Amino acid sequence: MIYTCTLNPAIDLFIETKHLKPEVVNRTNSYDIQPNGKGVNVSFILKQLGVDNTALGVGGGFTSEFIEKSLRDQGIKTDFTHIDGISRINVFTRVIETDTEYKEVNNGPIVSSKKLEDFLQKISQLKIGDKLVVSGSFSKGIDPEVIIKIAQMAQQQQFDLVIDTSYPEVKAAVKYRPFLLKPNNEELLSWFDKEDSNDLSTLVKYSKQLIQQGAKNILLSIGSKGALFVNQEQVIFGNAPKIKVVNTACSGDTMLGTFLAGMEQKLSLADNLQRSIAAASSTAATAGLTDFNDVKELMKQIKIEQLEG
Amino acid sequence: MIYTCTLNPAIDLFIETKHLKPEVVNRTNSYDIQPNGKGVNVSFILKQLGVDNTALGVGGGFTSEFIEKSLRDQGIKTDFTHIDGISRINVFTRVIETDTEYKEVNNGPIVSSKKLEDFLQKISQLKIGDKLVVSGSFSKGIDPEVIIKIAQMAQQQQFDLVIDTSYPEVKAAVKYRPFLLKPNNEELLSWFDKEDSNDLSTLVKYSKQLIQQGAKNILLSIGSKGALFVNQEQVIFGNAPKIKVVNTACSGDTMLGTFLAGMEQKLSLADNLQRSIAAASSTAATAGLTDFNDVKELMKQIKIEQLEG
Repeated sequence: MIYTCTLNPAIDLFIETKHLKPEVVNRTNSYDIQPNGKGVNVSFILKQLGVDNTALGVGGGFTSEFIEKSLRDQGIKTDFTHIDGISRINVFTRVIETDTEYKEVNNGPIVSSKKLEDFLQKISQLKIGDKLVVSGSFSKGIDPEVIIKIAQMAQQQQFDLVIDTSYPEVKAAVKYRPFLLKPNNEELLSWFDKEDSNDLSTLVKYSKQLIQQGAKNILLSIGSKGALFVNQEQVIFGNAPKIKVVNTACSGDTMLGTFLAGMEQKLSLADNLQRSIAAASSTAATAGLTDFNDVKELMKQIKIEQLEG
Repeated sequence: MIYTCTLNPAIDLFIETKHLKPEVVNRTNSYDIQPNGKGVNVSFILKQLGVDNTALGVGGGFTSEFIEKSLRDQGIKTDFTHIDGISRINVFTRVIETDTEYKEVNNGPIVSSKKLEDFLQKISQLKIGDKLVVSGSFSKGIDPEVIIKIAQMAQQQQFDLVIDTSYPEVKAAVKYRPFLLKPNNEELLSWFDKEDSNDLSTLVKYSKQLIQQGAKNILLSIGSKGALFVNQEQVIFGNAPKIKVVNTACSGDTMLGTFLAGMEQKLSLADNLQRSIAAASSTAATAGLTDFNDVKELMKQIKIEQLEG
């Protein structure tokens, strides 16, 4: 079973308004409410591609209930650890008159050490053949070092750990041989205290360092440039198709979910990378997650190159 | 039984942030989530003063569920008409650096004529001895003329109708002899196409016109000046105490709820008006609704004058 895990889930409230003026009542044009959280998105994508999975998470209140129900409505199993407090609502306000967006990202409630233990108790049940995807930032009260502990548990229990979080602690987790890391270029280079860059040879170099240190596979998204896949045997690269970007927020989650689904479905690495880049691009070209309708068409624009191996 | 009714309930999301800049992620300091809606507030106030009541409303989705659960958690009965769509989340962002507030008020989902009929079916069950409080704006799909229909039903079924909504249709409802209207000075004068004013003699004049046209009682809030009570027999006025205003949003609802509770509790009109103004002022001096702790103290600052009768 594939398990996703969201340690600070959120509801996204998208508001469209003509103007946003201080101290007056701004009556808006419209709003949209979406369940969010990077692990939640990976669950949705996996399920869209027909791959059963279970969403784990740490959340509270009616907002977390909404997120969990949204998952179950799609046929995804949920097993959240429930905390006091109300999981956050993030607000994205698009202002028509000035063509700007205001993004308000809230912190989320505090997780007690007892609740963190309850969550880790669930992880302790995972076993060989299982995959756990840990995505996104962690709630207040959850030390980023927990990713090192989870990596240790993965090695001991022999389940496959997939990490998509930008904390520097990821580097210390690498020695426990996580199955896959999915940074973007900026995250990868920040782990090596380097300036952001999208230079392929630089990105290959540092990806290979992570492989040497223990990571089994790296899936690296490079924004509008495309993506790299790196492991012991090979380095492959795919360019990104040309699209009109609407919102890139969930692109990385889409790429990861699609790639993991492709692994389950035994696609070749090249085909899998090609489909994953196309799906990520499709998500970037829509307001929410891709519906995969244009993915076949986008794939035609993507060429996969074997750089090494 | 007293029934309150909220035809466009909302959740209020209060965000505090250091700054609110366009096109970047603004990580905020804190957030608070509150159930809202003018009828919902009246229900909370009535219950705080020990008066049982039932909250009616027209709402949908997990946000309406949260509002209804918040009411039931306080021991208030609920009987909402459930619609498709998700009841709105309004956003109030306080920006520390500039000491400003951005208020984003959303529209709410559309109510079908079928659902409006379902709601009116509930109203058709009310009978002599019942009171119905209709507060706030109506959802899309609900024509403001429905207030005239409800007023007719009140007269036929002999229940007491209390109206706190600013629609001009209120004036046409007056001939069906509603029990109480609770406008503020601006609303009252707008019904007579007059400029806003807080001049007492002007406000008494137009209040008495509504009484002549059929309204049985008028409770008129006049912002920081105080409040008037007008009926066939008398006109009484109370000044407002001096307070440090935090948020006046729920003051009118507090005044109305307190006044209706005072009627149930057979307070004298003068005592009731005094307590109602104090409670409204207390709410204006706090972030949410008053807890009534400072109401006795605030009452000392309020003098009730018999202007007529």
